[in-house]
Amino acid sequence: MKICPTLPNPTILLKYLINSPIQRVDTEGVTSGDDALAVEEPLEIVLAFGESNHRKRQSISITMRTPTGNDFELALGFLLTEGIIKNYKDVISVRYKGSELDETAQFNVVQADLQPSVKFDANKLQRHFYTSSSCGICGKTSLDMVQTVANFWINREIPLVKRTILMDLPEKLRQAQAVFEATGAIHAAALFDTEGSLWALREDVGRHNALDKLLGWAMQQELLPLSNCIVLVSGRSSFELVQKAMMAGVPILAAVGAPSSLAVQLADENNMTLIGFLKSYRFNVYSGFERITQ
Amino acid sequence: MKICPTLPNPTILLKYLINSPIQRVDTEGVTSGDDALAVEEPLEIVLAFGESNHRKRQSISITMRTPTGNDFELALGFLLTEGIIKNYKDVISVRYKGSELDETAQFNVVQADLQPSVKFDANKLQRHFYTSSSCGICGKTSLDMVQTVANFWINREIPLVKRTILMDLPEKLRQAQAVFEATGAIHAAALFDTEGSLWALREDVGRHNALDKLLGWAMQQELLPLSNCIVLVSGRSSFELVQKAMMAGVPILAAVGAPSSLAVQLADENNMTLIGFLKSYRFNVYSGFERITQ
Repeated sequence: MKICPTLPNPTILLKYLINSPIQRVDTEGVTSGDDALAVEEPLEIVLAFGESNHRKRQSISITMRTPTGNDFELALGFLLTEGIIKNYKDVISVRYKGSELDETAQFNVVQADLQPSVKFDANKLQRHFYTSSSCGICGKTSLDMVQTVANFWINREIPLVKRTILMDLPEKLRQAQAVFEATGAIHAAALFDTEGSLWALREDVGRHNALDKLLGWAMQQELLPLSNCIVLVSGRSSFELVQKAMMAGVPILAAVGAPSSLAVQLADENNMTLIGFLKSYRFNVYSGFERITQ
Repeated sequence: MKICPTLPNPTILLKYLINSPIQRVDTEGVTSGDDALAVEEPLEIVLAFGESNHRKRQSISITMRTPTGNDFELALGFLLTEGIIKNYKDVISVRYKGSELDETAQFNVVQADLQPSVKFDANKLQRHFYTSSSCGICGKTSLDMVQTVANFWINREIPLVKRTILMDLPEKLRQAQAVFEATGAIHAAALFDTEGSLWALREDVGRHNALDKLLGWAMQQELLPLSNCIVLVSGRSSFELVQKAMMAGVPILAAVGAPSSLAVQLADENNMTLIGFLKSYRFNVYSGFERITQ
C-alpha cells in the first residue's frame, strides 16, 4: 500500500479565510475588530458519460464548499461515495469547466469525464441512498440500498487498534487543523492508520464535503479500500457520513460528537466500528467493539 | 400578531430517542451501558400541483430528519424557504402519504397539495438558490438568486434589541432543549421576540430541518413575516440558514457558533443582523449592528 502523508499548505489555508469587520459585544461594552471567516462558495459537479458516440453531460450536484484547493478530490469523493464510480480508473479526467459568461466563476464548476464503460443512471442518483423503488421509504430501506451499491466488504476481525491510540487522535487533529483554530467554523475529516499516524486531513464548512475531499484524495492515491485505517470527523456522525466511509471500505469511524440512530445501525450491519464522543481520556463504542484492544 | 408559545411535549420528545447498548472506554477500562441516540429517519416530500384538470405529482426532496412529530411543519417550512410557496394559503392540504407496500414507512412520506394558482417550476428548484441560468455559478449569483425569490423586505431600522436580552438566549434555549442534554446529537432552532420570550423551539439531527420545522410552524400560525423576532440556532450559521431565515422575514439571526463568509454577505445585503458565538457574557455582530442597544 502506498502511503502519502500530505498536510494542507499554510499558504493555501490562508486563501480560504477572509477577514470581516465585526463588533465584539460583551458585558463591558463594544469594540470594533476583524474576525476570520471560513469561505463558503458553491461548487457544481458536472458529469460527462455514455458511449463515445453518445456522450451526455449532466449537472449532478451543487454544494456549498470551502475552496481549499481540493475541488477535484471533492468531486471524485462525491462520485465514489454516491456509488457512481468504484475507483480512479473509472474516470478519464477531472477539470474545471469555466463559465463563458463569468470569469470569477470559472473555478466553481468541475467536470468529471467517466469512462464509456461506466454506467450512470441519473434517475437512481436522484432517489439517493434513502429509498428504493420497490418499497416505501424508511430507515431499513436506506440501509439496504447502501449495501446494494457498496464496493467493499469490511472484515469484522481486522484491524485491531489500541484504545490509547484512539484517545490521542483528537489532539493530533487539532494540531493539524490550522483553520479550525482561527475560525471555529470549519469541519475536518482526517485519515489515520491504526498506529495513529496522520495520512491526510481535509477541511470544509460542510462536514460531508470534508469527508468527500478526504476519500477522493485516498482514491486518487489508489489507497482503497482503506482497510487498515481510521477516519476521524470533527462533528457528529450521521447516516450520510457512515455511508460515505463505508463506500471507501473504512472499518473504523470515530467522531468528536454523537452518532444518530441510523448511523449506528448502518455501521453495525456492515461490520464497522463506530466511536463517538472521542476525547483524550474516554470514548463510547457504538458498534464493532471487538477491534478495540488495551 | 398572534403569539403561540408552544414547547415540545416531553412524551413526544422521548419518542425520538432510542437507547443503544454501548461500551464506555476510559483510561481505567471498559464498562457496558446504554446511550440515548437521536433518531434519524428519511422523510420524502411530495408535491401535488397544477391546474385542477392537469394535476401532477412530484417528489421534491428526501431528507434525513428526526421524527419529532413536526413533519407537516418541516414540509411547509421547506416549501416556504425554497421559495415554492409564500404563505399557508398557498397550500390546500398537507398529509402523510402511506406506502402501499410497507406499513412501517407510512409516516415517512408527506404530500403537500398546492393551490392550482401556485406556479411550480421543478427545473428551477433543481438549480436551487446557488446558481442562475443566465450566469456562471458563484457566491454573488447565489446571493442575487435569493433576492429574486425573497417574499419579504427587511427594514434595517427595526427592531431594536438589548444586548443583555441576546446574552440570555442561549441559556433559555438550553433549558427548553431537553433532547440536546440527553444526546448531544441534535440541533435546535428557536424563535424569540425582542423581549427574549420564547415562542417556539424545534429540534432535528439536521440543522436545516430544525429551522424548516420552526419556520413552517410560524407560517401555519400566520406569524409571517417574523419582523419582530430573533431566531437562535444551536450550531454554526451557513448561507443556507441565513437564506431560510430571510425567506420568513427574520431580521435577527443568532448562532452559538461561527458564520461562514457567504452567510455574512447574504445577511448584510438584506438588512439582517447576524450574530455569532453568542454566549452569556459576549457575542460578535457580523452585520446589522445598528439594531443592538445597551
